[in-house]
Amino acid sequence: MEINWQEFYARRTRQITGSQIRQFFALTERPEIISFAGGFPASDFFPREEIGRVLGELACAENSHALQYAPTEGNHDLRAYLAAKIRCAGSACHIDNIIITNGSQQGLDLLCRILVNPGDPVLVEEPAYVGGMGAIKSYGGVPAGIPMDGEGPLPAAMEKTILKLERQGRHPRLFYTVTNFHNPTGYTTSLARRKAILALAEDYNIVIIEDNPYGELCYEGTVPPNYQALDRSGRVIYLGSYSKIFIPGIRIGWMAAPQAVIEKVCLAKQTADLCSNSLGQRLAYRLSAEGFIDRHVKKLICFYRKNRDAMLETMERCFPPEINFTRPQGGFFVWVQFPPFYPPARELLHLALEQGVAFVHGEGFFSGAGGSHAARFSFSQVSPEKIAAGISRLGKLFYRFREEDTRQAAGE
Amino acid sequence: MEINWQEFYARRTRQITGSQIRQFFALTERPEIISFAGGFPASDFFPREEIGRVLGELACAENSHALQYAPTEGNHDLRAYLAAKIRCAGSACHIDNIIITNGSQQGLDLLCRILVNPGDPVLVEEPAYVGGMGAIKSYGGVPAGIPMDGEGPLPAAMEKTILKLERQGRHPRLFYTVTNFHNPTGYTTSLARRKAILALAEDYNIVIIEDNPYGELCYEGTVPPNYQALDRSGRVIYLGSYSKIFIPGIRIGWMAAPQAVIEKVCLAKQTADLCSNSLGQRLAYRLSAEGFIDRHVKKLICFYRKNRDAMLETMERCFPPEINFTRPQGGFFVWVQFPPFYPPARELLHLALEQGVAFVHGEGFFSGAGGSHAARFSFSQVSPEKIAAGISRLGKLFYRFREEDTRQAAGE
Repeated sequence: MEINWQEFYARRTRQITGSQIRQFFALTERPEIISFAGGFPASDFFPREEIGRVLGELACAENSHALQYAPTEGNHDLRAYLAAKIRCAGSACHIDNIIITNGSQQGLDLLCRILVNPGDPVLVEEPAYVGGMGAIKSYGGVPAGIPMDGEGPLPAAMEKTILKLERQGRHPRLFYTVTNFHNPTGYTTSLARRKAILALAEDYNIVIIEDNPYGELCYEGTVPPNYQALDRSGRVIYLGSYSKIFIPGIRIGWMAAPQAVIEKVCLAKQTADLCSNSLGQRLAYRLSAEGFIDRHVKKLICFYRKNRDAMLETMERCFPPEINFTRPQGGFFVWVQFPPFYPPARELLHLALEQGVAFVHGEGFFSGAGGSHAARFSFSQVSPEKIAAGISRLGKLFYRFREEDTRQAAGE
Repeated sequence: MEINWQEFYARRTRQITGSQIRQFFALTERPEIISFAGGFPASDFFPREEIGRVLGELACAENSHALQYAPTEGNHDLRAYLAAKIRCAGSACHIDNIIITNGSQQGLDLLCRILVNPGDPVLVEEPAYVGGMGAIKSYGGVPAGIPMDGEGPLPAAMEKTILKLERQGRHPRLFYTVTNFHNPTGYTTSLARRKAILALAEDYNIVIIEDNPYGELCYEGTVPPNYQALDRSGRVIYLGSYSKIFIPGIRIGWMAAPQAVIEKVCLAKQTADLCSNSLGQRLAYRLSAEGFIDRHVKKLICFYRKNRDAMLETMERCFPPEINFTRPQGGFFVWVQFPPFYPPARELLHLALEQGVAFVHGEGFFSGAGGSHAARFSFSQVSPEKIAAGISRLGKLFYRFREEDTRQAAGE
């Protein structure tokens, strides 16, 4: 008898769907395309020599610890280093408050495993990081989107959503947020907004999951204190990552949380994959402890700032004035809003690809409907020259819709 | 308001418990202890120079691919290599039938995510690999143990369990098995037994998850064909790992399964951790493709065979005859059964630790009651000399119970 796999899949798989971004990868990542689609860090800027040097030393060390299984909670030295880093950011943190994960994505996945029951509503930003909603949904959670403005998620809208859910008997217990240089909008939640949201979290007994992969990549001004540093009731769980400030190929991130939570997450990680890779943990530790990564971040800031400036300057100059776009202080992303009389961004993408330019249309970042006339532009992997060329090509394309619209309005 | 985390934990966390083996690590892994407890591979034998050489090359390669995110399904070259390896083992296998995972543990975790609903019974061996039961339970699955003899799980007992579950309206859809040099028993499922169990799986429409981390470490004779090679209905999912044949520190394993299953697992892995680490995948590929790992396995076989022989010879010579132990053809583990008049193995462990020797008592390997008078002895990390010293010390300890028992029987 041949197997009918549909009979075998668990109910939760109905909620596990592919990322739209990934579905477009084959199209958007062709070498002849100027792609603003992917959100990877710039591989040209990876510190190859230093990595090669330290890996060689780690591999050949006589005790072979870098090649053996690591503790589930992670390498002791790296955890101690990260606890100190969290303390510098203004939170009380001890080594027992830290667990190492495979990027912050696994941190979020393990948190959903221990905190989300099937059917539970989970507050997220709208638009939100696709992988964040994916992790929530893969445990049966239901993302509930909170609209944002340039200062971050709107507290009044959040309270309205909480009350609406409570009337349905569905108390939301978690809020997942990317606080700095948000993916996809580039917004940074302001200090006043953080305080207001933290107050709401206290009032309604909600835990905040603060995902901060981009916070150190600040090209202008400073970022406000973390939720975790502002929190007085131990209700914030912080996720960090080496993927954007160093390299993603080692898959090393971390979680800082109350010890009781770390212990639960550690039990979950035991069955998820036993431990994160030892080589990557020790590489991250060595280059962190040597101060190399902090120096590298300073160089990254200069590097990415040029990209951001090129994108914002060219958008300002070449996009029709009816197109709005965000002006991120850091990170990788600019969020672009097209006027309603434009074709949907999904169609714009196909026209853009004909011009050899790619971006990600907005729908995939919404928990419900929305984003049809929006798009995410990443400036992390393209040189300033190519950014200028790609954006000005799109500008010409977009002006066509304006002219068509003007003609239509004039009754032509 | 201080947070009461108990209110926040998802229902499934009630089933997530720590491994008893890990709880004892602090005790058993003190340097002065001769420990047969841990199941790690021997780090003295890791090929440090070759790893250092290839890592240096990978890190410094101009394209930086080894440092960037990898595709979720894994590195293309490694998947192609592993598909060919699976074909050599006698199964039809194409690159689209392979996904790379963080060790075979993550493979099992992702399979449970897509295949196990809360409350589902999952057939496992009794005793079973602790991490296997852990993954099943962390998705709400309920392990149902199938007793084993020296030829593997007993088909009659399996059918009885299936029928009993079906009478309760709970059809088991999965059987998880470690086929070669089983953890913890060291048993290898015979060819006749594999055929009988595969026939049962066909009759009752059950999927077999075949976990084979130790199969290549065969010190005597040969192992039967894999379930996947014997299968004619595409109902076998195979899990492999570099942890035992190479190094665990890179966390690289693989799954071979029908393409539809691989696609679902890939979606699940996207939200679990995006991808496995690129460096480890490329290191495993390079040393596999160069033929180095196959040559290394031959050396490992000679190395571990000496350990196994030392353990079996000393047990034969020094243990009282009422103690039974298995004689594995390969892998890392010997399973020891104490007679009922001995104290429980948990107590024996404490007495053994006083003699400076450690092992793992058996209860943790059972889905229900059982294993109170059994223990797992690993010979992977201890030299033949220390094995002989440790086992003979235990022999003296065990003879005491025999004498006490003889005296008690004589009415003393």
